[in-house]
Amino acid sequence: MTGARTGAARAAGEGDGRERAEALDAADRLAPYRDRFVTGDPRVIYLDGNSLGRLPRDAAERLRRVVDVEWGERLVRSWDEGWMDLPTRIGDLIGRELLGARPGEVAVADSTSVNFYKLCVAGVEARPGRRAIVTDRDNFPTDRYVAEGIARAKGLELRWIDGDPVDGPRPADVEAALDGGVALVTLSHVAYRTSAIADMAAITALAHRAGALTLWDLSHAAGSVPVDLTGTGADLAVGCTYKYLNGGPGAPAFLYVRSELQGGLRQPIWGWLGRRDPFEMAQGFEPAGGATTFLSGTPPVLSLVAVEDGVRMLAEAGIGRLRAKGIALTEYAVELFDRWLVPLGFTLGCPRDPARRGSHVLFRHERARKLYQGLLNSGVIADYREPQGIRMGLAPLTTRFVDVHDGLAALADLAS
Amino acid sequence: MTGARTGAARAAGEGDGRERAEALDAADRLAPYRDRFVTGDPRVIYLDGNSLGRLPRDAAERLRRVVDVEWGERLVRSWDEGWMDLPTRIGDLIGRELLGARPGEVAVADSTSVNFYKLCVAGVEARPGRRAIVTDRDNFPTDRYVAEGIARAKGLELRWIDGDPVDGPRPADVEAALDGGVALVTLSHVAYRTSAIADMAAITALAHRAGALTLWDLSHAAGSVPVDLTGTGADLAVGCTYKYLNGGPGAPAFLYVRSELQGGLRQPIWGWLGRRDPFEMAQGFEPAGGATTFLSGTPPVLSLVAVEDGVRMLAEAGIGRLRAKGIALTEYAVELFDRWLVPLGFTLGCPRDPARRGSHVLFRHERARKLYQGLLNSGVIADYREPQGIRMGLAPLTTRFVDVHDGLAALADLAS
Repeated sequence: MTGARTGAARAAGEGDGRERAEALDAADRLAPYRDRFVTGDPRVIYLDGNSLGRLPRDAAERLRRVVDVEWGERLVRSWDEGWMDLPTRIGDLIGRELLGARPGEVAVADSTSVNFYKLCVAGVEARPGRRAIVTDRDNFPTDRYVAEGIARAKGLELRWIDGDPVDGPRPADVEAALDGGVALVTLSHVAYRTSAIADMAAITALAHRAGALTLWDLSHAAGSVPVDLTGTGADLAVGCTYKYLNGGPGAPAFLYVRSELQGGLRQPIWGWLGRRDPFEMAQGFEPAGGATTFLSGTPPVLSLVAVEDGVRMLAEAGIGRLRAKGIALTEYAVELFDRWLVPLGFTLGCPRDPARRGSHVLFRHERARKLYQGLLNSGVIADYREPQGIRMGLAPLTTRFVDVHDGLAALADLAS
Repeated sequence: MTGARTGAARAAGEGDGRERAEALDAADRLAPYRDRFVTGDPRVIYLDGNSLGRLPRDAAERLRRVVDVEWGERLVRSWDEGWMDLPTRIGDLIGRELLGARPGEVAVADSTSVNFYKLCVAGVEARPGRRAIVTDRDNFPTDRYVAEGIARAKGLELRWIDGDPVDGPRPADVEAALDGGVALVTLSHVAYRTSAIADMAAITALAHRAGALTLWDLSHAAGSVPVDLTGTGADLAVGCTYKYLNGGPGAPAFLYVRSELQGGLRQPIWGWLGRRDPFEMAQGFEPAGGATTFLSGTPPVLSLVAVEDGVRMLAEAGIGRLRAKGIALTEYAVELFDRWLVPLGFTLGCPRDPARRGSHVLFRHERARKLYQGLLNSGVIADYREPQGIRMGLAPLTTRFVDVHDGLAALADLAS
């Protein structure tokens, strides 16, 4: 339905018709991946893969097997037949293929919030005597709230950076907040609203120079932009698996702890799965070692197994090609924005430079909330983000150029 | 195969043959429930429903729908179409039907370990100036380890009760550990190894008289014994949903916070889903109120939805009938134990009085570990628990009297 309406509405623009988007899709080497996902109602245009990624067909099949056979038939025996290793096996896969991490540095379990809590506490306690956590005002809410809770409990100062409204916290902003009292700097690598990429290498170097550790939230970065945790010297990281990793609703999050730090850090939730030989059920906690030390309770197996299939597809595509496609998609979106939306009073809420932008875009308009609802009603699924922002997530494996075209055309129609 | 072997082996015992078990099953009003679960290979005798409960057929069906339709088709829209309320909706159901809790007191999310951490910290901080946590040496490992971590971080004393080896911690044991320095008493309501039931009302009253709060682990109690959180005056509780609640491997745990305490308690992990209006994404954490305040991150939807179907069946059966069946099963097991296993050198590791025993039994034997492995090899799934214990979980909805008969007969055969 959107296609029909927008065909008429955008007919005036020579050369920027739907054929161009179709040609881009035809030339896209990642296009065939889309068929490996459930795409559902063809009238729906899904531009929210950075909120909840699509369902990989392999994951649907795998979940059936895990439910019917591993739970239904094998029952408790499945713990010895593969479940026990899921957090570190999937963690290592994500680490190697998407984060530039080494084996034993990444585990998957708990939510991003809980993992952030564990590593934030561990990071702060690793710098005794230092009383400040640095973060930015636009950081993802759960990170801000959790840090606020930790600061309250420990009597720490939460030192806020007001980054650039579009470009986010720059190295100079971080540098200005640093001194010998800072224990930890925590930022998102890709900002959840503006899509701005923070300079992980430069900021980590500045933090280290001041004697602080860094904790990165990779939720909107993992699977969309190359991350080099080893090379940048990042200390700690967490991130979500239900966005570009397509792990499913509320799929458990990953955490990263740099090998060199693992021996000296203690996370606060000493659950049995973080203990050496948990089924010994012995007296006294002893850390398991490696990323396993940072686990706590029994992982949610059904929500965990689905993560692997999405990550395998991303690995197969390769983060280089994913990034190239992400840039091509957002560049195309910005191009249509310039042509169609600027005349309608929209402003660009994300960086114009593709090198500084993740795989989602943000368009601001004074009637954004109403326009978002209008999009939803006409089958275009995006996000509304305060203030006055329409966010569109362009997932390299599943978003087509025609989706971008049709979604922006629908938005232009609604705003006209 | 087990049936054939044991038929011969136990033929000598007049009147205690398999016919008696068959007659008990025929008279069991809960027997039809078993057909509503996936039972798999009929040669397997599953006596571990307190480690991982069986798969309800409804849950398998529901998971297909959630994966294929709610994730695959509705995608992010499903958050507004039911996912957002899952933690409190399922929490209220568990609370009302199984725990004697009031609406708004129970939520389901995170693991038992993480929930225990949250409530243990909240409980201790609600009693400023008091520096001790009381628990028992035989408490479930994750509770002990997490409490140990909290004690270390806060410089608290962990005051250990050595309860009776079979009957666990009695009110007098707790009373002896109490004084004006105790902030929190935390125990399991049903002990994970011995099955001993701790007297929640008496112990809570003693704790309150000393000015302390109580935090109960209901993992082996929920769905197997009646729990009256309101009536006993219990303050806080956590528990597992993948045992008698049949929620699936690693299904998220529940937490309970007594209404009267909610306003005054602060849990440490201030994630966005514990905040008022999380999607406002505003500055500053403000508790959501009710049990929601004790949530943190995005719940693992796939692992969460499956919990509801198991709980609904338990509710339909009614906790009174579940308890009666559990007692009948464990009484029958103890009767066969006396007849078959005592002569082979076994001792009873669980209370003999059914009123003091949950729905699992523990038999000790010096070769228990080897016998456990032998059982497993012959298709009888139980648990080994240090020291020298074979634990058998008898789940009221899915364990038959013939399973108890055949399982114990196989054990007697192996030990002969």
